[in-house]
Amino acid sequence: MEFQPPRGTRDFLPEDMIKRQYITDTIKGVFEKWGFDPLETPAFEDWGLLSAKGGQDIKNEIYYFKDKSDRELGLRFDFTVPFARILGSNPSLVKPFRRYQIGPVWRYDRPGSGRYREFWQADIDIAGASTGESDALCIAAACDAMKSLGFTEFFVRVNNRKIIEAFLISVGLKEKVIDVMRSIDKLEKIGEKKVSDELNEKKIESQKIKKILEFIKIKNLADAKKLVEGYVDGREGVKELEVILDFIESLGFSEFVKFDISLVRGLEYYTGPVFEINAGINVSVGGGGRYDNMIESFGGKPTPATGISVGIDRIVLAMEEKKLFRAEKTKTKVYIAAVSESCTNEIISLSRKFISSNIPTEFNTMRRNLRKELEYANVKGIPFVVVIGENEVKSKKAKLRNMASGEEKEFSIENPESIIKILGKN
Amino acid sequence: MEFQPPRGTRDFLPEDMIKRQYITDTIKGVFEKWGFDPLETPAFEDWGLLSAKGGQDIKNEIYYFKDKSDRELGLRFDFTVPFARILGSNPSLVKPFRRYQIGPVWRYDRPGSGRYREFWQADIDIAGASTGESDALCIAAACDAMKSLGFTEFFVRVNNRKIIEAFLISVGLKEKVIDVMRSIDKLEKIGEKKVSDELNEKKIESQKIKKILEFIKIKNLADAKKLVEGYVDGREGVKELEVILDFIESLGFSEFVKFDISLVRGLEYYTGPVFEINAGINVSVGGGGRYDNMIESFGGKPTPATGISVGIDRIVLAMEEKKLFRAEKTKTKVYIAAVSESCTNEIISLSRKFISSNIPTEFNTMRRNLRKELEYANVKGIPFVVVIGENEVKSKKAKLRNMASGEEKEFSIENPESIIKILGKN
Repeated sequence: MEFQPPRGTRDFLPEDMIKRQYITDTIKGVFEKWGFDPLETPAFEDWGLLSAKGGQDIKNEIYYFKDKSDRELGLRFDFTVPFARILGSNPSLVKPFRRYQIGPVWRYDRPGSGRYREFWQADIDIAGASTGESDALCIAAACDAMKSLGFTEFFVRVNNRKIIEAFLISVGLKEKVIDVMRSIDKLEKIGEKKVSDELNEKKIESQKIKKILEFIKIKNLADAKKLVEGYVDGREGVKELEVILDFIESLGFSEFVKFDISLVRGLEYYTGPVFEINAGINVSVGGGGRYDNMIESFGGKPTPATGISVGIDRIVLAMEEKKLFRAEKTKTKVYIAAVSESCTNEIISLSRKFISSNIPTEFNTMRRNLRKELEYANVKGIPFVVVIGENEVKSKKAKLRNMASGEEKEFSIENPESIIKILGKN
Repeated sequence: MEFQPPRGTRDFLPEDMIKRQYITDTIKGVFEKWGFDPLETPAFEDWGLLSAKGGQDIKNEIYYFKDKSDRELGLRFDFTVPFARILGSNPSLVKPFRRYQIGPVWRYDRPGSGRYREFWQADIDIAGASTGESDALCIAAACDAMKSLGFTEFFVRVNNRKIIEAFLISVGLKEKVIDVMRSIDKLEKIGEKKVSDELNEKKIESQKIKKILEFIKIKNLADAKKLVEGYVDGREGVKELEVILDFIESLGFSEFVKFDISLVRGLEYYTGPVFEINAGINVSVGGGGRYDNMIESFGGKPTPATGISVGIDRIVLAMEEKKLFRAEKTKTKVYIAAVSESCTNEIISLSRKFISSNIPTEFNTMRRNLRKELEYANVKGIPFVVVIGENEVKSKKAKLRNMASGEEKEFSIENPESIIKILGKN
């Protein structure tokens, strides 16, 4: 019998996991700095909950199953639905309720480049605040996360669906708002020509298609404002966006944020502002928006909410492409090799000293010969090696070898503090 | 519509998550110190893989489902089976292969005190080494994790199944070894009388039951040795255990480790040494052992392996009982409150300074009045508060208030370095 991970899922061997942990640890630190606390929810949820919110496209992608009491369940496909569930069923939670959640979600999608059936997300959300400050805060925290990961050319596109809705109403497409937005959402992916074809198939008159294509080319908010100021929702949408952009500037991130009137985001639950993060290589690495109605629909009081989600797997790809990872194949810093079994006590005693000083340390556990030990340390990418033989035991002195530079430093086996300092810094 | 987490699963709100992250971060740090690297595997695996290894009891507890291509899958119920799968299908992985894995696993069990259907484990395993050093290393790392979490009265019981097997053969129970071990495994839970009744039901003669009950009372390895030294497996079992105990002593953890001849552990895949961690309140918080045949059964070359698993949920309970957590309801260190909306710019500007100095900071995002803001900071347990009003804006000086002690410290809004130092230390 030989088995592989199920299609669309992956094993992460140490070299990959070290990269992924670097990303999740960095993002976690940034999210906490911005005042978000950790929260965790089960991997699976009630089927009724999941199927109520995703819309048909996502519903088809949920891993569905029954437990042994015939409860209908599904693997979570995002963190927003569980977040809204918690708010909906715990009305006494203090507001604003701000949390981050990092972990895997599952969608039965066709696997492809950067698309997996098990993938990781890192989300922040704020429930209870309807202000532009809260949207701006989420965008700023996401920008700060991107900066902290080393991205320099990333940007966040922001828009407000109310603007595009007001415009579509103004051209007489009130009944087809969702339909048209779905097509516009594909603009980046399929280009203007195909969007136009799709709208044509959806029986939008060609003259209106022309107007739509002109509208989504608008580059600044002032121009959009002129077109929609006759509509309450349009004015509100512009005003909300102005406030958000103002706060982003106050928070010091406006250089990374730009207005994009064509941004609508696929999910149906967004009620106004929407955001999308681009890593600078034309790849979306996350996004989000405001969803003011979802918590109420899960039994809660009317509770405005906003948030943003970062796709860890997309970030990994973007960081690989931009060479933002430092090469690190193992967390182990030093390997202590024995010339012969008679040195075992010294090996163990030195390992104890290193480990109790927080230096990740490995020693020979396979009773192999020195050549094989050194080969192992080398293949594994352990940066430092100490070899202990009869001479070292007698003289109570050994050498720390830097495997990359070949440099050696002698130290006292009984008082290795000087060498522990060096290892601690590497 | 109102929904709860599915039966046997839980949401972890920030106060709980902060405790759980403290545990997983501590354990992760210790495992890395002891030379283990991170690895991650999918939440679900091929049904054929999972059902091949768990034994019937566990097989009944696996969450089984089909994906939309009718692939038979199941949620993972431990980390050992996926680990063995990876080794089995990647023969070129350098040995010893040492990894840790921390995350949720799922078993459809009857929920009860400390027993959930979704629960977290933290595992270390070493593949490729058949030596007592590798078993001892795992036990020492687990002890170090317990110490680092603040436990003082914990202990690890160790045994070798080969000893008890040799004994059972010596009394003529060769055919019933697994059956008898299953009953002995329950000794701690159900007591001697019920173990005896169970053996009786399993049609073991009463004279043999008496011998078994005497045997499992043996307290030291030397006495056990006398009984089984006529059997190759018995001698081997004792010898292996002696080596393990020797290395545990060299590694400095023998005060936490004791021989327990009655320990067998439930799972069928263990081939010799077995371990169980007790938090000192008669609750097992983890365990493990050597499983030298599993990797081969998954298509690999014969590869010895050993490991130990810590149950995070059990650790949480034990730490609660022993009051080992420090009270921390939020990661946020400081709340910046505004007396009126006109101070918004100053609030934001000070927040930026704190956040960019890595101080987790919250500011008013709901435009609430000062009383409500302070109430919020208090309920949420944020340890420090700064209030900014007209006076503070004019004088460019504000006060940092320690919410627990009531102590206040004045600082310059424009150069808050002194106060950032204080916040950074708390």
